[in-house]
Amino acid sequence: MPNAIHLQKENFIEIFKIQTEALIAIHEFLYQHGFLQLMPVIVSPITDPLCHSVYEANIEYLNQKLQLTKSMALHKQIAISALDTKGIYIVSPNVRLEKDIQSDNHLLEFSQLDIELKGASAREFMSFMEELIVYTFSRVRDRCKEEITLLRVPIKTPKTPFQLYSSWDLRSEFGTEFGFQISQREDNLFWITDFEREFYDKENESRKGHYFNYDLYYPEGYGEALSGGERDYKYDVIVRKLEERNQSPEDFAPYLELAKADLLGPSAGGGLGIERLVRFLTKRPHIKEITLFPKVPGEKIFL
Amino acid sequence: MPNAIHLQKENFIEIFKIQTEALIAIHEFLYQHGFLQLMPVIVSPITDPLCHSVYEANIEYLNQKLQLTKSMALHKQIAISALDTKGIYIVSPNVRLEKDIQSDNHLLEFSQLDIELKGASAREFMSFMEELIVYTFSRVRDRCKEEITLLRVPIKTPKTPFQLYSSWDLRSEFGTEFGFQISQREDNLFWITDFEREFYDKENESRKGHYFNYDLYYPEGYGEALSGGERDYKYDVIVRKLEERNQSPEDFAPYLELAKADLLGPSAGGGLGIERLVRFLTKRPHIKEITLFPKVPGEKIFL
Repeated sequence: MPNAIHLQKENFIEIFKIQTEALIAIHEFLYQHGFLQLMPVIVSPITDPLCHSVYEANIEYLNQKLQLTKSMALHKQIAISALDTKGIYIVSPNVRLEKDIQSDNHLLEFSQLDIELKGASAREFMSFMEELIVYTFSRVRDRCKEEITLLRVPIKTPKTPFQLYSSWDLRSEFGTEFGFQISQREDNLFWITDFEREFYDKENESRKGHYFNYDLYYPEGYGEALSGGERDYKYDVIVRKLEERNQSPEDFAPYLELAKADLLGPSAGGGLGIERLVRFLTKRPHIKEITLFPKVPGEKIFL
Repeated sequence: MPNAIHLQKENFIEIFKIQTEALIAIHEFLYQHGFLQLMPVIVSPITDPLCHSVYEANIEYLNQKLQLTKSMALHKQIAISALDTKGIYIVSPNVRLEKDIQSDNHLLEFSQLDIELKGASAREFMSFMEELIVYTFSRVRDRCKEEITLLRVPIKTPKTPFQLYSSWDLRSEFGTEFGFQISQREDNLFWITDFEREFYDKENESRKGHYFNYDLYYPEGYGEALSGGERDYKYDVIVRKLEERNQSPEDFAPYLELAKADLLGPSAGGGLGIERLVRFLTKRPHIKEITLFPKVPGEKIFL
C-alpha cells in the first residue's frame, strides 16, 4: 500500500516545521519591504510557454480553452504593470506534465514564490533575492534548532554576494549539463546569468542573443532554486521574439493586446521553488520526501 | 478592451494592501498557535465531490485521470491523520466550473484558507475560528487606517461568541434561500450548523440525518465565509454514507484504502474563502472587484 507507506515516513513533522518557518520568514521579509500579496491563478487562456516541452494540461469551460498555470510569469508582469506599487508576490502552484525528466528535483505539481519588482534591473532583483535568502536561512537556523539537530542538517547562512557565472562560459567548460555539474562543485549559492530562452526575458539590444536573466542555484548538487529575469515589455519587441521562437501570437492574445495598448512596463522578477527550498534546507535525497502527496514525473500518482 | 478596463480600475492598491494585511495576520495567528503549513494540491486522482453539481475539470497524465482540486477536504483529513501535530493549514486554490450560479459571491477559481485541527470537536473548531477572525479584523483595522478611510469601509471588530443557528430552523423560517436571507438581516458574523451534505462530515449517530458541521456567514448580505465540519473517519461509516449518496467508492479508492487500514482519525476543520474575506473587508458590490484576473461563472475569461 504505497499511500500508507509514504504517509507514515518519519520526519514529516520536522520537515514541515522547517517549511513553515521558511514560509513565515518569506512573508515577513516581503511584508517589511512593503510588498503586496496577490492570489494565484490556476487556469487561464494564457500561461508561460516554458522553454522545454511538456504534455498539455487544459480544461474547457463554456467552449473556452483554459490552461493550467505552468508559471505566473505573464500574469505577474501584467499585475506589476497595472499596479502603482514597488513589488508584488504570489505563492503560486504550477502544474507541469513533464515528458521524460529523470530527476531528483522535479515534481509535476509544485509551488513557486513568485516575485516581481517594478522598474527593477536584473542586478537589483538579484541583490533583493540574496537578502531574502539570507533572512530566510537565518530565521530557519535560529528557530528550528531541534529539527536541525534531529535531521542532522546543519544550516549555513549563505555568503553574499553570491558568485556570478555566465551560462556561455559554463557551457563551454562543462557541456550542456553545466547546471548540475557546477552545483556539485560549489559550496555556496550562486547565480548563472544570460540564458537564451522564453520570449518575455529581456534581450540585450546591443548584444543580440544575450539576455538580462538569471537562475539561482543551490550548492552541493541540489540544483536550481529560482529562475527569472528582467522583462521585455514593448509590443514590437515581443511580437518579433515570438516569431523568432515560432510561437503563435494567438496563444498570447490577451497579453499582446495589453502590450499593444502600452499597458506593460519594465520589471524584473523570478520564481523560487518552495519544495526545492525545503528540500535543500532539509537535505533530502529526493524532492518527493518533503511532501505528503508527491507527483513524480513518470510515476503513478496516488493522492 | 475589457482586460484593460478591469486592470485599470481604481482602488486595487488599497484592496491588495488589506488583503496582504489579512493574510499576514492569518499566518501570524496560526504560527503563534503552532500550526504547520502545507503546500496546496492542484491535481489528484481524488477531490471533494462537493454537494452541488459542477462541470468536471480533469486532465490526463500517462493514462491516469487527474481532477483539479474542488477543495482539499479529503487531503487535509489524510494529512492531519498522518501527522502527530495539533493543526495544519494550507492556502489552497480551488477550481469549480459552476454550471448556472447567478451570484455576486462566486468565482470559478478562488483560494481557501484550509485548516484542520486534530481530534477537535465542531465547537472547538468554531471557537478557534472566531479567535482567528477577530485577530485578523483587528489587525486590518489597526494597520490599514488610510485604506479604510479612502475606501470608506469602516471595519468593526466582530463580537464573540458568534450567534448560532440551525439550518433546520432557518429553512422553516426563510425557505431554501435561508443563507442569503439571514445574512441580510444580521449585523455580526454568525454560524449556521447541521447541514445534510458531503459524506465526510460527521453524522450524529444517535440522531441520524443530523451533522456536526457548520458554515460561517458574514452579515449585511455578504453571505458565506467558511464551510466545514467534524469528520467521519471509520471505514464502514464512510462506505455506508457514500452508498446513501449514490457515490461510487471507486472515485475515492485511495482515500478508502487509508480508511480501511485505520489510517484516518478524528478531526474538525474548515475552509475560509480568501476572496470572500477580502470582499467583506472592502465591501465591494461584486467579488470580481477584488482580483485582477476574475473568473466569473458564465462569463468569458480574459486572463
